[in-house]
Amino acid sequence: MAVLTDEKSRTDLLNRLKRAEGQLRGIQRMIEEGQPCLDIASQMAAVRKALDSTYVRMTVCFMEQELGARLGADAAVQAQLAPMLDDVQTLLGKVR
Amino acid sequence: MAVLTDEKSRTDLLNRLKRAEGQLRGIQRMIEEGQPCLDIASQMAAVRKALDSTYVRMTVCFMEQELGARLGADAAVQAQLAPMLDDVQTLLGKVR
Repeated sequence: MAVLTDEKSRTDLLNRLKRAEGQLRGIQRMIEEGQPCLDIASQMAAVRKALDSTYVRMTVCFMEQELGARLGADAAVQAQLAPMLDDVQTLLGKVR
Repeated sequence: MAVLTDEKSRTDLLNRLKRAEGQLRGIQRMIEEGQPCLDIASQMAAVRKALDSTYVRMTVCFMEQELGARLGADAAVQAQLAPMLDDVQTLLGKVR
């Protein structure tokens, strides 16, 4: 399967993953400091959500790229597709 | 809500989170190296699973601790409760 070549998409995904990594380190600190389980659980749920939305974002970036490769980089076509891709991202965000 | 005080449980959770952090760094490397989206997706699913089982583990450790505090640290009682807690962990692992 294809590779993400768009530099902007890759940077976006990398930034999201870096943030999630920071959140994970924060949770480790919370456990070391003996914070309440409920607070730790909330932070774990937040990382899960961040990872899920990164997953969806990657899928949509991939669609964008592949549609561009197949339909051409015509600005009018791109403009027509953009709202659909936004909707797909919202839909996938609800499912996972 | 209570805090996880059991040292062994805390170390277990910390090790799981450290592993997940390493996996997240691995995914960032995969994106930087231009690996296929499908491989990246598999790794993201693996981190998600690791986080979910850490979440369940934390909940079960908390139950163990609170049952111990309420019913006493009697070895016979503990031995009776252990299989139930294992089952709870399995059940919660299926749900999430």
